[in-house]
Amino acid sequence: MILVRWRMRSATFFLDGAFRRGSAFSKLVLIFAASGGALVAYADARTDPATEPSQAAPKKKVVVLGTGWAGTTFVRNVDSSLYDVQVISPRNYFAFTPLLPSVTCGTVEPRSIVEPIRKIIRKKGGEIKFWEAECFNIDPDNKKVHCRTNTGTNLERNGEFLVDYDYLVIAVGARVNTFNTPGVVQHCHFLKEVEDAQKIRKSVIDSFERAILPDLDEEERKRTLHFVIVGGGPTGVEFAAELHDFISEDLAKLYPTVCNLVKISVIEHGGHILTMFDKRISKFAEEKFRRDGIELRTGYRVVKVSDNTITMEDKLHVESSVSYGMAVWSAGVGARPIILDFMKQIAQGNRRALATDEWLRVRECDGVYAIGDCATMSQRKVMEDILEIFKFADKDNSGTLTVKEINDALEDICIRYPQVELYLKSNQMSNIVDLIKASKGDVRKESVELDIEEFKNALADVDSEVKNLPATAQVAAQQGNYLASCFNRMKHCDKKPEGPLRIRELGRHRFRPFRYKHLGQFAPLGGEQTAAQLPGDWISIGHSSQWLWYSVYASKQVSWRTRALVISDWTRRFIHGRDSSCI
Amino acid sequence: MILVRWRMRSATFFLDGAFRRGSAFSKLVLIFAASGGALVAYADARTDPATEPSQAAPKKKVVVLGTGWAGTTFVRNVDSSLYDVQVISPRNYFAFTPLLPSVTCGTVEPRSIVEPIRKIIRKKGGEIKFWEAECFNIDPDNKKVHCRTNTGTNLERNGEFLVDYDYLVIAVGARVNTFNTPGVVQHCHFLKEVEDAQKIRKSVIDSFERAILPDLDEEERKRTLHFVIVGGGPTGVEFAAELHDFISEDLAKLYPTVCNLVKISVIEHGGHILTMFDKRISKFAEEKFRRDGIELRTGYRVVKVSDNTITMEDKLHVESSVSYGMAVWSAGVGARPIILDFMKQIAQGNRRALATDEWLRVRECDGVYAIGDCATMSQRKVMEDILEIFKFADKDNSGTLTVKEINDALEDICIRYPQVELYLKSNQMSNIVDLIKASKGDVRKESVELDIEEFKNALADVDSEVKNLPATAQVAAQQGNYLASCFNRMKHCDKKPEGPLRIRELGRHRFRPFRYKHLGQFAPLGGEQTAAQLPGDWISIGHSSQWLWYSVYASKQVSWRTRALVISDWTRRFIHGRDSSCI
Repeated sequence: MILVRWRMRSATFFLDGAFRRGSAFSKLVLIFAASGGALVAYADARTDPATEPSQAAPKKKVVVLGTGWAGTTFVRNVDSSLYDVQVISPRNYFAFTPLLPSVTCGTVEPRSIVEPIRKIIRKKGGEIKFWEAECFNIDPDNKKVHCRTNTGTNLERNGEFLVDYDYLVIAVGARVNTFNTPGVVQHCHFLKEVEDAQKIRKSVIDSFERAILPDLDEEERKRTLHFVIVGGGPTGVEFAAELHDFISEDLAKLYPTVCNLVKISVIEHGGHILTMFDKRISKFAEEKFRRDGIELRTGYRVVKVSDNTITMEDKLHVESSVSYGMAVWSAGVGARPIILDFMKQIAQGNRRALATDEWLRVRECDGVYAIGDCATMSQRKVMEDILEIFKFADKDNSGTLTVKEINDALEDICIRYPQVELYLKSNQMSNIVDLIKASKGDVRKESVELDIEEFKNALADVDSEVKNLPATAQVAAQQGNYLASCFNRMKHCDKKPEGPLRIRELGRHRFRPFRYKHLGQFAPLGGEQTAAQLPGDWISIGHSSQWLWYSVYASKQVSWRTRALVISDWTRRFIHGRDSSCI
Repeated sequence: MILVRWRMRSATFFLDGAFRRGSAFSKLVLIFAASGGALVAYADARTDPATEPSQAAPKKKVVVLGTGWAGTTFVRNVDSSLYDVQVISPRNYFAFTPLLPSVTCGTVEPRSIVEPIRKIIRKKGGEIKFWEAECFNIDPDNKKVHCRTNTGTNLERNGEFLVDYDYLVIAVGARVNTFNTPGVVQHCHFLKEVEDAQKIRKSVIDSFERAILPDLDEEERKRTLHFVIVGGGPTGVEFAAELHDFISEDLAKLYPTVCNLVKISVIEHGGHILTMFDKRISKFAEEKFRRDGIELRTGYRVVKVSDNTITMEDKLHVESSVSYGMAVWSAGVGARPIILDFMKQIAQGNRRALATDEWLRVRECDGVYAIGDCATMSQRKVMEDILEIFKFADKDNSGTLTVKEINDALEDICIRYPQVELYLKSNQMSNIVDLIKASKGDVRKESVELDIEEFKNALADVDSEVKNLPATAQVAAQQGNYLASCFNRMKHCDKKPEGPLRIRELGRHRFRPFRYKHLGQFAPLGGEQTAAQLPGDWISIGHSSQWLWYSVYASKQVSWRTRALVISDWTRRFIHGRDSSCI
């Protein structure tokens, strides 16, 4: 194990996640902020604040689309006594997706990582309804969603129905992005759903059964046993590692005559694999893969996939191709058709995902929220509001800001524009004075005054800290949790807003804006080794990280049932190995 | 629990099965007998008996088609140092089919009842080869089988290949018999393969998800939740019981608003369900099902299935129909296409299954054996050979038989014609004298003499005891075991035949003929109650039989891995219930 730097405050830090019910930590992560728009409309609707919802108007209808990390976390945490909650999803279960790569090779069984959404609802004891159906159209003008059931055969009707909403929480997730590469949909496996993982497992074993047949020549056997993974991100890399382990630990014994013909290749457009991780992890992974005999083709972009050949081009657009037996495409995610349609309706047509504000409200769309992979939160830029910020801080309307004035307004500014705080941190500045010092030269505290131009200069680079949140389970779960808390505290915050002071208007925001707290990320590399990157530049690679990985993933399971199943699957794998039955 | 009669000699009796390796009992069950035909050809081929096969001629090729109970038991028990064994099957695993009904409702996971055939082969340490492919044509003239792989996509070639054999063991099993009823293939589920059970499970949950949707009227919900099982045999009944338990124990909690609309119906052509069991079991099952609210429609034959209606007629050909949501067809088994083709080739075209002799050799076909559900063993009738039997017993050629002469020949006759012994037993006769007494009136022992007509009269009803063996796992496993032992002892028995004296020729048969030993049968009826019928009219129904069932099925598992998995599945079900995720 390589322990690069130890900055973690507590070992329990990691074991707490947004998904752990009643965890003190997950509450801590949540930051509340004032909100306007849709939620104000809700407040207005109730004319007499003393009247309880149960006695007066019927409960507001909250419709949640999706049962992934975002949707499920929202449902688990929303107070169903306050709202009439309906959940709509084509999957009647929540899947613990970080273990999907383990399912591809039978390290964990598919059913061990899923929990029926109805069980989750039932445990809450609330009156939440669930419909197993796919929403195919959102009608924000009439506040309705059009749904179609995908269940059952022999149905005469087309199975379509309408659901009204007052608030809509869109959490449908993303789909695989093929970048319109020809042949990908026809010939590649994906790794997004539980069914995908099951198909991959069957396909791997089928490849071995095919390659060992008596009538094949050596070339054909080699081609059949060439496994190609397109995309060197965490999913692709973890799958490659799992596959390597599956083959070397289990299949090699059962297919001894062909196991020396196996080749695993990872094709990555960028210069390295795992680029979202620290370079040390990236380097370690590349070295480990090379030792394991996994071929890395970095700097290549796949341009075409046929039934037995993958064509790619390098940075200089020189084409080359390899023959393959089985390919898994994990090169990125894109918006689902329903999101693309909806974005066109609300004039967001040129975007890659639904844009929301910092309170996760879909812009231009009353009462609609979007969380998880289907959405991107757009952080408002400091430079867009610089005049208002200046005016907001200039309490005495003198046209200049003293350091004291800035310091007084700083808390609200930092909550509304978290990039300011991030910028200070990442430049090792302790406070705003350092920032002004950096832009204006040495200054005596409290006495210096800035005019608007000087203030602009000081904050000029701050917005560079604004980054899109990654499409991970962690972000989705935190967003679901945050949004549920806002819904639960809406009545309270109508009276006592908790957010920062408004910069452009009077009063306070109702809630604090959503703020993502990165808890770290794992990259399992096979051979019982895992790389872990935790916040604060803390990196750990090796066998002990694997045990950390086991503990975290076991503790983050959604129920005791799945926890017991996952742990028993791991134990079974240690004792009996992975199953190679082709089912 | 109803304990009707206790005749079981030992509790361990049941725990021993043909499938338990090294079990003393399974050895005991096997009866060896002399064999001619194909196996003689093998003996002739080796000119010098002193030469070991490994030193001289290459090992004879044994090709086994199928990895079900019959094929797998053969493979497990055959001595692969004596033969070049190749196994061909479209499934690369053995499935413990008696637990299939449990898989339909998630009481047991599909992967817990399967074991890769390669693992079974590897444990033997032998050189057995396995090809995952489907045999689509048998060419007995050239001793070849034509195979086609069903694995892998993107293959340019059609995946066909040829395999030579010296001995062919056909163990491909049966397929579902629809009796050409229109609509069955399109609209009904079957319950024959692991995949079928998985589909049924998904379909049951889908039915509930569909029935609970907001847009349906009461009629439609009721229709969707009407589960119809066609066939009141052990499989259909066990599935109905499992489904009832799944719904009442698990789904009722998750779908409380619709669970009172559920209806389960069993349609059975005969007058009762479980007709192959004792009447007391049949009656108990019918009463229990009525208490559980499962509708029994006995005496009805299904004549048509549409996408939402099942049409049936009663004994008087009066038609009636019911609307349904999901139907499972388990009304019987028929021959697979490859067996039908093969039967045409060898002039058995008018039969329902491949006919074999008592040594499991396919008649008219050199070196070909058939075991399990694809075959029927035709027991030679006493009346066909009555003249030869008379001559065989008449040692002094006097034209009459004394009781002593009959008694001297009786052992060989009983081995060759087991119906004689069965007839004596079922008529409570202790020996042949009682039989003669019954036909000829009171006789003094030893002195009476019978002529051929009197002998014929005495044995006239004996052949009524000849019955086709049922299409069960027990028969298949015993046949696989028997045949493997014959193969293993062939060299020994060439020199020292172990079978009975030949009736129509000189000398002895090489092996004893196959003889089925019925070890009993279970019929799980749900609610932790099982009916057990054991040999010797011993019947047990109730909760303790359920525990016997658990013990027997756990002990009969093919490996410690599947045993551990099945037991942990049962435990999980007790603790957490069955999973209702739709995967």
